[in-house]
Order: sequence, then structure tokens, then C-alpha cells
Amino acid sequence: MLIGKVCSIRGGIRSCVVRPIARLFTCPSNMAKSKFEYVRNFETDDTCLKNCYIVVRLDGRNFHRFAEQHKFTKPNDNRALGLMSRSAHSVMEELEDIVIAYGQSDEFSFVFKRSSNWFKRRASKLMTHVASQFSSSYVFYWKEFFGDQTLLYPPSFDGRVVLYPSNRNLKDYLSWRQADCHINNLYNTVFWTLVQKGGLTTVQAEDRLKGTLAADKNEILFSEFDINYNTESALHKKGTTLIWEKRDETVTKRLKRPNEEEKDVNVTRSRRKVQAYHCDIIGDQFWQEHTDILEDDNC
Amino acid sequence: MLIGKVCSIRGGIRSCVVRPIARLFTCPSNMAKSKFEYVRNFETDDTCLKNCYIVVRLDGRNFHRFAEQHKFTKPNDNRALGLMSRSAHSVMEELEDIVIAYGQSDEFSFVFKRSSNWFKRRASKLMTHVASQFSSSYVFYWKEFFGDQTLLYPPSFDGRVVLYPSNRNLKDYLSWRQADCHINNLYNTVFWTLVQKGGLTTVQAEDRLKGTLAADKNEILFSEFDINYNTESALHKKGTTLIWEKRDETVTKRLKRPNEEEKDVNVTRSRRKVQAYHCDIIGDQFWQEHTDILEDDNC
Amino acid sequence: MLIGKVCSIRGGIRSCVVRPIARLFTCPSNMAKSKFEYVRNFETDDTCLKNCYIVVRLDGRNFHRFAEQHKFTKPNDNRALGLMSRSAHSVMEELEDIVIAYGQSDEFSFVFKRSSNWFKRRASKLMTHVASQFSSSYVFYWKEFFGDQTLLYPPSFDGRVVLYPSNRNLKDYLSWRQADCHINNLYNTVFWTLVQKGGLTTVQAEDRLKGTLAADKNEILFSEFDINYNTESALHKKGTTLIWEKRDETVTKRLKRPNEEEKDVNVTRSRRKVQAYHCDIIGDQFWQEHTDILEDDNC
Amino acid sequence: MLIGKVCSIRGGIRSCVVRPIARLFTCPSNMAKSKFEYVRNFETDDTCLKNCYIVVRLDGRNFHRFAEQHKFTKPNDNRALGLMSRSAHSVMEELEDIVIAYGQSDEFSFVFKRSSNWFKRRASKLMTHVASQFSSSYVFYWKEFFGDQTLLYPPSFDGRVVLYPSNRNLKDYLSWRQADCHINNLYNTVFWTLVQKGGLTTVQAEDRLKGTLAADKNEILFSEFDINYNTESALHKKGTTLIWEKRDETVTKRLKRPNEEEKDVNVTRSRRKVQAYHCDIIGDQFWQEHTDILEDDNC
Repeated sequence: MLIGKVCSIRGGIRSCVVRPIARLFTCPSNMAKSKFEYVRNFETDDTCLKNCYIVVRLDGRNFHRFAEQHKFTKPNDNRALGLMSRSAHSVMEELEDIVIAYGQSDEFSFVFKRSSNWFKRRASKLMTHVASQFSSSYVFYWKEFFGDQTLLYPPSFDGRVVLYPSNRNLKDYLSWRQADCHINNLYNTVFWTLVQKGGLTTVQAEDRLKGTLAADKNEILFSEFDINYNTESALHKKGTTLIWEKRDETVTKRLKRPNEEEKDVNVTRSRRKVQAYHCDIIGDQFWQEHTDILEDDNC
Repeated sequence: MLIGKVCSIRGGIRSCVVRPIARLFTCPSNMAKSKFEYVRNFETDDTCLKNCYIVVRLDGRNFHRFAEQHKFTKPNDNRALGLMSRSAHSVMEELEDIVIAYGQSDEFSFVFKRSSNWFKRRASKLMTHVASQFSSSYVFYWKEFFGDQTLLYPPSFDGRVVLYPSNRNLKDYLSWRQADCHINNLYNTVFWTLVQKGGLTTVQAEDRLKGTLAADKNEILFSEFDINYNTESALHKKGTTLIWEKRDETVTKRLKRPNEEEKDVNVTRSRRKVQAYHCDIIGDQFWQEHTDILEDDNC
Repeated sequence: MLIGKVCSIRGGIRSCVVRPIARLFTCPSNMAKSKFEYVRNFETDDTCLKNCYIVVRLDGRNFHRFAEQHKFTKPNDNRALGLMSRSAHSVMEELEDIVIAYGQSDEFSFVFKRSSNWFKRRASKLMTHVASQFSSSYVFYWKEFFGDQTLLYPPSFDGRVVLYPSNRNLKDYLSWRQADCHINNLYNTVFWTLVQKGGLTTVQAEDRLKGTLAADKNEILFSEFDINYNTESALHKKGTTLIWEKRDETVTKRLKRPNEEEKDVNVTRSRRKVQAYHCDIIGDQFWQEHTDILEDDNC
Repeated sequence: MLIGKVCSIRGGIRSCVVRPIARLFTCPSNMAKSKFEYVRNFETDDTCLKNCYIVVRLDGRNFHRFAEQHKFTKPNDNRALGLMSRSAHSVMEELEDIVIAYGQSDEFSFVFKRSSNWFKRRASKLMTHVASQFSSSYVFYWKEFFGDQTLLYPPSFDGRVVLYPSNRNLKDYLSWRQADCHINNLYNTVFWTLVQKGGLTTVQAEDRLKGTLAADKNEILFSEFDINYNTESALHKKGTTLIWEKRDETVTKRLKRPNEEEKDVNVTRSRRKVQAYHCDIIGDQFWQEHTDILEDDNC
């Protein structure tokens, strides 16, 4: 175990037998390290192009089955969504330079700032670290969201890295994911309303929705079930956006100045905290209110 | 949540307002998906060269601190080593085409067979999936190895992909890792013996070992502490090698043939199981005994 | 030869012998093509990231020797510089989407527009085509610049591809090359003046210039040789910038309208032509005067 | 021009004005180099995986048109094929580590040995250098093959790099290209025979050959035109394979030993020369006769 490894030892092991008794010791690996070390040169460099946003997106693997087996409510399970956000939060706190993360359903995207030099911008390191931290957090925080319900097996996520050279491209990426969230959630809301409240089978519900437009779906909800989609949960319609925000915290400290009595003093500190939003990030408003997320294109 | 996603919906959403009431519904994302979807084209292809072994190696992140905080025994903690192997086992069972895995300390390497087409050989998918499955398993199986001792926070691992074109290269890679295991374990064994049994401080032990060769270290153990390094635990000296092995299993089945009485019948089935070894994999013997691990070079 | 290849034939060749005489024909490659065609899958994708400028830079190989053997004048040979520009011109006319090219000494950089989809942005195709067209042009146009002086052997250039995500990055790239031109030309001008007019050996000239700053070099030229570096040739100080410019051309056409006499009419057409500049491209002025070269960052 | 560049100068230029007169000198680029030099970091590493054969294949661009304009004979023009081989020969002599090259029609493939470290195995350097050397040679040697016939414009080639991990893969690659040569040449031979001797139009010839197998084509040649395809030119049927061969050369040297008369002595030297073959390289025979071309797989 690395636990005991005080320092890394390389080479320096040349001869073996010193006195008779030493014959007992076999040292098959003496000098072996240098002989084999050439295999390191097969590693290839996967540094991300500079001055681009680095996006790592994770997707749940076989989450349809995972959701069935863990009896997630349909069309949305708030415990599951909460656990996804909690895990993403954990990623943001462990990895430097993530400026915004966006999640919906069983996916989460993490955006590293353009000028980041975290892990020397090595794509493999960035994406495996994100995938690993997210996955261990998912299991670690399971109980916080699912209480006594047992996690049946360790879930997994796969990931990828995509680079975006401009602010426009990055915003369009996030818009693409949020539009995807909207389209799927509208569909799923109507679908499960037809099944759960309308008494249709899943096959009938699918048939009913074939070829319908967004307006048609809104209409079904409104006229048949008295549901105004607009007033549905923002979490479900918009997904979750995580950003860093500075918060002033007032802490009381006991202070003792020379020639004074000891007394309590209120100290205000500014601290960065991860904040969750369930709002539109396709339009300009969000970006105008949070101008510190993106860096200038012309740099 | 994907839970409710019956099918993936793309496009098909063109106009919005049908009758007055529909004005209530805002559809900011109509047509948005196709407008934003161009961002997909920024993904780059990272297919691994065919006919090469694909190795994914994971390394624990900040495991020195993790080990301290979870009071791992030194120089080796068998619970921690067992948990690493259990997690690697879980990776092998979830991902197809891993033919051999080798681990020591806080690292584990997974070798996909040369002809594998798992994930279409996409490097990012392969390494993130391995990193994710391993990490979630590590937390999931923690209790099996650490019992009531609390896991304080979710640990993480980073990973990389390396390709090896020939059997010689692959074996040399594994030899490199096992030689590393040997060198570190010998050092750590002497170091902690000097501290724990010899009463040296860690600084003194480090000084004592500066510049010593393998033979010198063996000698210290033998002459000063009556320890023969050769008889130390193979798990610690050789690390853990996981491979697939076919086992014949005899299962008793109750059978009812026409015109016969119902009766118990023994059925023998061949099943693939992951088997752990703590043996030398640098020499030829291991490979001669397990000829099905590697594929012929000339293919 | 492809000359006669009317269409490409794949597969479709299954059996061979039809009647006795056919035994004379051996058909070793029947079905061979499909059997071997798997090797195509070893090609990897090297598509350049979208929305980035693609720069291909060529550098002369062993041009020090080439210049010696072809007796180039020092410190600058205008024939050689002219031939470089002529070859670059040929590249711009053959390859689509090059918006600006910059050359100095034995190097030339070609910039493809951000939105180019030429060769599907495949890096290998782009750079080899540039290298090939430039090299064949260099030999083809040799006589235009060197007249009867024989080209002794075919010269060669190597190339590379670099991507730049923003206008700032691209302009800084070109500035880097022009600053390099300035620094080298100032050095070379003083060096060869010391040798050719000052009577120093090359070793003495090198010693004299060791550690000198730009101002020192200017001063040597001015006070010792009465040369004002500022009035030296712009071609040598600034290198060569090639861009596309629209020019109105007036062409006289003979026209015959119904019920009219045939007559000459002047027709004005706008034509794109490659234009060479030897001016500063580090400052803003050049870019303000040629706003159509770069595309907006925020796209 | 690099001609005069005695050494490369970096930095070292800090201040500008020394005395009044110096104001005449503007030094816009002072310090510019270091300020801009960050753009170098946008270059990415494209090192080829070790222990793989590196194949660079060149293909003529628009050679159908080139052949028409230069009146190449059909179906094969021996002058053009000769010029291709001469240019490939020039590439082999200029670049180290090419062990075999194969060409047909307007394409040529160059194979670098597995263990090559030429250009540090950087793909971009390798392919651009090959493309450049080949292209300049094509123009340079034009007259040797086409005599007084004018080369109308500089032709160009594009290239790519493909890696092959095993001897089997590499041989299959070369077989693929030779099978392609065979299939195209058989088709073209029959096609142009039908047109030139059979009096068919090109459209009629194309129709006649639609759906025919190799045997059918052999049959047409034999029964209608008395041509045995097997006895056609090996150059056309098999393409051109270039390899290095050691030849003993006997040179006569005039020698003067102490206390002896001066006399002529025959000295035998072994020299590597590029040798051209037009033989089958799909079967084993060629490889058995030239065992030094490939390196052992298991290295």
C-alpha cells in the first residue's frame, strides 16, 4: 500500500548477494524496473487545446434498469435528481476550475474555465477524475436521499470530453442540453399523465403521442387533465445549474486586544459556495446576471 | 429522469400556438434542439488503434491522506488491498473483454483484449467507465472490508489509457508494475520494521535506507530483525493478478421426463469466474500456464 | 494508371475458371480485396476542432545547405524570397479557404478560415496538400526567379498544423512570426555588414554581437556604416503577407443586341486576387484596413 | 533568409533608445517575441504509437485531369509510372528508415520500420516531408521521363498516416493495395481494348463490363482480342515495390604503400541501393526472399 511509501524509489538496486545467507533471497526484479520502464513511452499526450472551454459530460449506464430496480417514481424522482446534484456538487468542490455544471435526468455536464491548467489540461485525467468522484459520491450520499432503501449494486457512468472555442459555442452546448431536458420532460409528463391518470396502457400512450407537437402536448395536459405545464416544477422543466457564488458570512470571534477586555467581535468573510439554480439558461438573462462565469472571447 | 423516457424524441416540434389558451404556454425551446445540435460536431473521435492491447490504469488520488485518515495499517493494510481487489473484480464483471487485471498499492491496471470492440474502442468511454465502476464499487463494498469503521468521504481515482501493440510490450508493462510493487514493498517493509520494531523515527529510518540496495535491505531485515523477506506475504510482494477461469460446477436439478418419475439429476456446467493470484507474472511460467489470456501477435 | 480508371470497381469478382483455356489465367487476388480491406479501419480520424483557425506552417529542410549550394546572397536573397511567395501564391489559388498567409526566410504559414470545411477539416489532408503544392511549385517556378541557374536537387519542406480558437490567438501567432522575422533580419543585417563591409570574420562578427540589444545593433549600423535600419527593405524587415483582394476589372466585350448594330461594351467584373504586402501586421492598423480576413469571435 | 542566420536569437532585446539619434529607430517588436511566444503551446503532440509500422500513403490530386491534359497513354503510361517510381526513390534516399515502398497508378505508400525514431515519430513531420520530397521530385525529374513535353502546372498529392501493429497487418495493407492494382488494371485493360481495338464507345465499353467477373474479363481479352492477360506487363499488373538491397561494388583504387610501387587495387564495398520489383507481394515468397524488411512481432 502506498500508505507506507515514504518516497518513490527508482533504480538504485544493482547487485544482490552479499554473503552466503543472502542466497536465500531471490531478487527477480533487480534492475527489472529500468528494463521494463520503456513501456512508459507508449503513453500518448492528450492535452486539450488551450483557450477552449473543456466540457466533461457524464451519462448513467443502464439507468433505465437501475431506475426500475430502485423503484424511481415516474416521470421524475426527486430523490434521484437530488442525489445527482449532490454528487455534482462534490465534484465541483474536489476539482478546481469548474465554473458551471448542468444536469438533467441521468446526465451531468461540467465546464472547466477556458484558461484552466488543472491536470495540465490532460483530457484523460480530467474525465476519469470527474467520473470517479461523481460515482463514489453517488454511493456515498445515497442514504441522504434514499434513506433506508437499499442500494442494490454499484451504478456506473461513462464520460467524454468536448472542447468549445467560444462563449457562443459553450452557451449553445448548455442550451442544447437544456432544450433536451425540456423536450423529454414535456413528453414524459404527458406520457405518464395519460398512463397514471388517463388509464391508458404505455403502448396506448405512446400511440397517442406519436407525431404530436409541443403545443399538442400542452393542450392534452391542459384540456384533459387541467394541468398547466408552465406551473410544473422548475427542477423538472429546467434541470439543475450549479455555479459558484460568493456569500458574505458573519462569524462571531472572541477577541482579546492589549489593554482591553476580551470581547465577541463579528467578522464578515466572503466565501465561495456552490449554488443551485433551476432556471432558464438558454436566454441572455442568466448570463447577464452572472457575468463572472465566462471569460472574454478575445483573450 | 430518464426513468420515464420511453423513447428519445428528436425534432418534430415545429409550431406552438394552436388556440388562444395555448398562449399561456411559453415554448422557448421550440426548434431549439436542431438550432443548438451543431455543438455535437465538436466531439472528436478517440478510437484506439486496432489490434493493440488497451490498458486502463487507475491511481488513487491523495491516497496518502486517505490512508492516514482511515488509519490504514503500515506498511500494508489487508482490508484496503482486499477492497481494491473487490472493486477490480466488480469492474471485470461489468465490462466485457478485460482479460487480465493487475493491482498493487492504490493502483489497478485493466487489460482489454487486442481484438476487443467494446465501446467501439473509444478511449474516453473505456477509461471513464472503468474509473466510475471502480469508484462506486469501492464505496459500495467498503463495509465488507472495514466493517463498522466509517468511510469519511468519497475517495477518487484518476485513469489513463495506454496501447500496447505486441504481447512482449504488454507483458513488459505488467512486469513494470510488478517490479514497482516489489521495490516499494521491500523498501516499505524495512522502513516500517525499523520504525515499529527498531524504534527509529521516520527521519532516521529514511536516512538509514538512503542509498541501500535490495540486498542491503534484505540483510537488515534478516540480521537485525530475523525476518526472511522471501517468506513475507505474497499478496504484498507480488500484488494481485485477476484473470478469468473456467470452473466446472455441478448443479442438482429436479427433472421430470415423460413416462418417468420425477428425479434429481446432476448437471455439470462450465462457468467463467474471476480468479485472484498473488504470483510472479514477470517470468514465463504464469503465461505458460494461462495461454488463453493473450492473443497471437501475428493476427 | 488512374487515367484509364473509368470507375472504381470493388468486389464482384467471385469465381475464376469458366472453360479449360481459362486455366491459363491465375487470379491470385480474387476476393482478396475484401479480405484485406479491414486494414482501412486502422486509419484514425484527425478532424480539426471546429470554430478554430487552422494554421499550416511549412519550414525548409536543410535550407542552410540549400542556400549555400545555390549561392543565395546574404543576408537576404530576393530571388529566393520571391520564389517562396510565388509558391505560397500557388497554394492559395489551389486550396480553398486560406484567408491569409505569412512568410519570411524559408518558412510560410497558411491560415484557413475558422468556418472552413475544406477536406472536412482533416489535419493530415490539409497539411500534406499544402506541403505538396508548395514544393512542386517551388521547383516549377524556379526558373522564373533564378533564370539559367540550375536547381541542383529537389528541395523539401516539412509542415505542421496548429489550431487557434480566437482572433487574438491568431493575430498573436502571426505577430510571433513577424517578430521573429524582425529579430533575425536585424541580427543578420548587422552580422553581414560587419563581415562584408567591416572586414570581420564570421567568428569575430558573432563575438561582436554577443549580448547586444536591438538598440546596440541599430547603433552599430548607424554610427559605423551610416545605415539607417528603418529605411532598409520592407520585404526583409516585415516579411510577406498574402491576402485576397477584390479588384474591379474592366473588360471590353463585343455585343450584338436585336435590332442594333454590333458594338463594343465595357463590362466591369469584380475578381478576387492574391495581393502581397510587406507591412506591419503586429499593430491594429493592418487589421482595421482588412476587416474581412477574420471572422467574429462570438460565432 | 535563413541563409544568413548564424544562430537563432531569442529574447535578449530589452530596451531601445540609447542616445538621441536612436529615436529614429522604431522597435515595435521589442519584447514582442516573448509576449507572443505563448502561441507555441497550442501545438499538439502527434507522436505515433511505438512498435508499429508507420505507413504514409500519397494520392495524386485531380490526376484524372492531369493525365488528360498531359496526354497520358491509356490504360497505362509508362513515362508517368516511371516518374512516380523515380520520385518515390528520391523519398527513400532522403528520409531515413523507410524499409519498403509500394506504388501503382497515382498513389505511393511508404513504410517506416517499426522501431524508427525518425522525426521522433511525429506524424505531421513524417507525412509532410514525404509529400514535399515526392512532389518536388516529381517536377524535378519530369524531363527525364517526358522529355520535351511541357509540364503545364505544378501537380499535387495529399497524404495520410496509418499505423500497423503487426507484420500480418502490414502485409495485408500492402496486399490490399496490390489487389487494388490488379482489379483496376484488369478492368482498364479490357475497357481500353474494347474501345481502342473493339471500336466501342466508352459508354458501350462500360455497359459491356457491368457485372462481369475477373474470369469474364480474362475471357473477353482472350477470345475476342487474342490477349493473354497473364503475359501482360508485370509493371502494370503488379505495380512497383521498392526495397533496399545490399550490393557489392568493386571499385578500383590507386594505392601507394611504403616501399612499394604505386598500383591499382580492386576494393569491394557493400552499398545499400534502392531496388525496384514488379512482382507479387501478396504471397509468402517475396517475404521469404527478403527477410530483412520486417522486424519480429514479438519485440
